[in-house]
Amino acid sequence: MIDQSTICAISTPPGVGGIAVIRLSGQKAIAITEKVFTSPNQEKKLAEQSANTLHFGTIRSGEKIIDEVVVSLFRAPHSFTGEDVVEISCHGSQYIQQAILELLLSKGARMAGPGEFTQRAFLNGKMDLSQAEAVADLIASTSAASHKLALNQMRGGFSQELIKLRGELLSFVSLIELELDFSEEDVEFADRTQLLDLATRIEEMIGKLADSFKLGNVIKNGIPVTIAGETNVGKSTLLNALLNDERAIVSEIAGTTRDVIEDVINIRGVSFRFIDTAGIRTTADKIESMGIERTYQKIKQASIVLLLLDLTREPKKYLQNLEDVRQHINQQNLIIVGNKADQVDEDVVRKMLMDITLADNEDMVFISAKMGHNIDSLKNLLLETVNLAKLNNEEDVIVTNARHFEALTQAREAINRAIEGLHNGITGDFLSQDIRECMHHLGLITGEISTDEVLGNIFRNFCIGK
Amino acid sequence: MIDQSTICAISTPPGVGGIAVIRLSGQKAIAITEKVFTSPNQEKKLAEQSANTLHFGTIRSGEKIIDEVVVSLFRAPHSFTGEDVVEISCHGSQYIQQAILELLLSKGARMAGPGEFTQRAFLNGKMDLSQAEAVADLIASTSAASHKLALNQMRGGFSQELIKLRGELLSFVSLIELELDFSEEDVEFADRTQLLDLATRIEEMIGKLADSFKLGNVIKNGIPVTIAGETNVGKSTLLNALLNDERAIVSEIAGTTRDVIEDVINIRGVSFRFIDTAGIRTTADKIESMGIERTYQKIKQASIVLLLLDLTREPKKYLQNLEDVRQHINQQNLIIVGNKADQVDEDVVRKMLMDITLADNEDMVFISAKMGHNIDSLKNLLLETVNLAKLNNEEDVIVTNARHFEALTQAREAINRAIEGLHNGITGDFLSQDIRECMHHLGLITGEISTDEVLGNIFRNFCIGK
Repeated sequence: MIDQSTICAISTPPGVGGIAVIRLSGQKAIAITEKVFTSPNQEKKLAEQSANTLHFGTIRSGEKIIDEVVVSLFRAPHSFTGEDVVEISCHGSQYIQQAILELLLSKGARMAGPGEFTQRAFLNGKMDLSQAEAVADLIASTSAASHKLALNQMRGGFSQELIKLRGELLSFVSLIELELDFSEEDVEFADRTQLLDLATRIEEMIGKLADSFKLGNVIKNGIPVTIAGETNVGKSTLLNALLNDERAIVSEIAGTTRDVIEDVINIRGVSFRFIDTAGIRTTADKIESMGIERTYQKIKQASIVLLLLDLTREPKKYLQNLEDVRQHINQQNLIIVGNKADQVDEDVVRKMLMDITLADNEDMVFISAKMGHNIDSLKNLLLETVNLAKLNNEEDVIVTNARHFEALTQAREAINRAIEGLHNGITGDFLSQDIRECMHHLGLITGEISTDEVLGNIFRNFCIGK
Repeated sequence: MIDQSTICAISTPPGVGGIAVIRLSGQKAIAITEKVFTSPNQEKKLAEQSANTLHFGTIRSGEKIIDEVVVSLFRAPHSFTGEDVVEISCHGSQYIQQAILELLLSKGARMAGPGEFTQRAFLNGKMDLSQAEAVADLIASTSAASHKLALNQMRGGFSQELIKLRGELLSFVSLIELELDFSEEDVEFADRTQLLDLATRIEEMIGKLADSFKLGNVIKNGIPVTIAGETNVGKSTLLNALLNDERAIVSEIAGTTRDVIEDVINIRGVSFRFIDTAGIRTTADKIESMGIERTYQKIKQASIVLLLLDLTREPKKYLQNLEDVRQHINQQNLIIVGNKADQVDEDVVRKMLMDITLADNEDMVFISAKMGHNIDSLKNLLLETVNLAKLNNEEDVIVTNARHFEALTQAREAINRAIEGLHNGITGDFLSQDIRECMHHLGLITGEISTDEVLGNIFRNFCIGK
C-alpha cells in the first residue's frame, strides 16, 4: 500500500540564501545519495555510516563537481517520515539547488508531491492525520496565537483523546452488535447507562471542540476587521499608527476584488486582517451608493467593524454615517473611533459621547491616529473582542481546521441522535448505526479512517518539500 | 584579533518553506543552544555529544515550546567557520524562524553581519580571501558558466598558485634586501637570471589572469546584448522565442532608467542579458531622435548588438536603420537579424544578402521569431561570440572579480617595472620596491594582506547567514 519510491525535493524556502536543503526519503535515499556524493578522502561509504550523523563532501555529476555539501543521515524508523531520510545542505544558489535536484532525479529518486514527506510520516504511523495537517498550519502561522494552536495540534492536541473515546465507542458498539446476533433472546450486553454516560461525555467534548472553531478559525486566518469611514477620515493613518507601534509582521493580501487590500497586523501575538474600504466618498451629505454597497459587503465579512468618525466634521454627518453602518451590523462588534481628537475641544468629544448611545456589542474610543494618541486603548478594545482567556489557557484545545470542524459537526449530530435514542429506548440496530456514524467522523479527523481522496485533498495544499 | 562572540543568523532563503536553518558559530554556539534545546528524554546534553551528529528535540522559551527541531553539531576546527557551529533545522514558518533567532540572541548570541560566517572561515584560515569571495559568487550564480567559475575559485582556483609565486618572490626580495645591507661590498645574493625567469613567469600568469577578466566578468554578470530595431519589428516576439525554447532562468532586472527592462536568458549554460531598446519609433522615414539617442547609449553598454530588420518593409528603410546603428558600433559584435522571413519570398532575402556587405565583426541570420524558425542559428551566433573554448577548458582559470582584476593590473605593472629594471641593471633598492609592490597586490587577492576596510568592503555584499 505504501509507495516504495524514494522522493526528493527542495525543503527550504524558494529563492537564494546562504544554504538550501534538499531532502530525500525512501528505501533508496542513502543509496541514491551515495551515487552522487564523494567524501574528501573518496573512501567513506554513506551506507556504512551511523544514523544521525553529518558528512562533508562534494556532490558530483560524473567528474564535474556541483557543490561542496554537508549530508545528514537519518535511518528508518527514527526520522521525520519513518523512512531512511537524507538531507543535503548545499550552497543556496538556485542553480545549485536545481542541479542537485535534477541529478538526484536522474539517479532514481522522483520529485515529491506537495506535503508528501508529511503524508509518508502519517502513513508510516509517525503522526495521526490531524497532527500531519498541523504541520502545514505550523509552517503557515505568522502570529504567536496561530503558531501556538498549530504546535499544540501537531504535538497531539485533541487527537489522542478522540482516539481514546473512539476506542471506547468501538467496545460498546461491538457489544450492541453482538446483542443483535442474539436478538431473539432480548439480552443486553452493552450497559445502556454506561453507554449514555460515555455518549454524553463525547457529546460534551465534541461540542466544545466544534464551538472552539469560530475562535480557532479567526486566529488561524487573522481576525477580520473592516474599517469603515469616509474618505480622509484617517483610515490609512490609523493603519500606519497600528503598524508603527508594533514590531509587526505585515503583509499585503490581494482581496477577492482588486480594490481591496488587506493589511495583516499582529497585535500582541494575535493577527488582525484589516480590510480597508477604499473608495467611499460623501457627496453632498449623500454617501455614494456604490461605495456604501461595498462597505456593507465588507462589514458582512468582518468579526469587528471599526467605524472611524472625524471629530472635526459636523455631528450631523457622522451620526448619519453611524446609523448607516449600524443598520448593516449583525453579530459583529462595532468599535466607534472618534479620530482627530487632538484637533477639537473637549466639548466636541463630550457632544459625541452624549449623542451616541452604545449598544451591547459596541464600544467607543477617541484617538488621534496622526499623533498616535490612545492607540493602545484601541488595541485593548480589539483584543477584548477575542476570547483571549480561552486562548491563554493551556488546557483548552481549539479547533482551527475547517475539515475537522465539519467532521466534528457530523459526529456531534450522530452522537446526539444516539443519546436521544438511548433516552427513548431505541433498538440496538439503530443505535449501532448512529454510533458507527459518529465513529466514522471522528476517525476521519485522526486519519484512522482515510481515503486516497481525503489524503489527496489534505496534502495538495502543503508546500513541496515538507 | 578574532572576534570571540558567538554569531547567529537564518541561513536559508528568506520566506516560508518546509524547513529553515538557523546557524550559530563561536565558542559558545553549543552552550547557547543547550540553554534552549530539550531532548525527548530531557537528559541529553549537547555539550557531551560527538562532532558531526544530529539531535532531535524541542526549542523552548522557558516552558513554552517554540518548535520541534533537529540540531546539527560541528566542532572546531572541523566546521565551515573553523569554530564550533550549530545548525538548528526548524519548521520554515517566519514566526518560528524569528522566534528562535530572538531566543538565541536573548541567550547571548549576537546577530551575524553579512557574510560573517564566511569572514570567520577566512580569519580562521579555512580558506583564503579569494575563496571566501567565491562563496558569494557561488550563491549568486544563475548559470552553468558562472557557477563553474565560482566553484573553481572557491575550491582553490588560482590562489594557491599566487601564494606559491608570491612566496618565491619573497625569497628573492629578502636576498636583494640583504644585499642592500652589504651595499658597499657590491655582492649579489639574488641570482638576477633566476629572478628574471621568475618575474617573467609571474608576469605571464598575471597577464593571462588579468586578460581573462573581460570574459569572466560578462559570464558572471551575463553577456549584455542590446536589441535594436524599429517598433513592431518583433523584438518581444524574439525574446519570447528565445525563452520558450530554453528551460531558461528568466528574471527582470530594473535598469538604471525606468524604461529599460533586462531579460536574463540562459542559453546552454551561458547567461545573456537582453537589453531591449523600447520606445524607438520611425516617423516618416526619420527615426525619432530621442529614441535613437537612447539606442546608441544601449549599444555602448553591450558586448553584442542584435539589429532586427523587418523583411516585409522597404529595403531603403532597413538599410538606413543599419547604417545608423553601424555608426555607433565600436568593438561590439553586430548580429543582423532579418525577421519575418516566413512572410516574404526568397527574393527579398536574397536582396538583403546582396545589399549588405558584412564586416569582420558582423554576422547575419534570417529567422521567423513568430514561428520559431532558425532561432537555433541565432543562438549559435550568440554563443560563438563568447570564448567558449576557453570556458570549457578545465585548465584555464578565469578571473570574475573586479577587485582581483584591479589588484592583478597593479601587480602586473609593478612586475613589468621590475622586469624592465632587471634588463637595465637597476639598483637593488628600486628592484626591491617594485617586487614588494607586486607582492602587496598579489597578497591583497589571497588575503595574505588584508585590512578591516578591505574585509568590510568584501563581506558587506554577502547575504546574512553565510
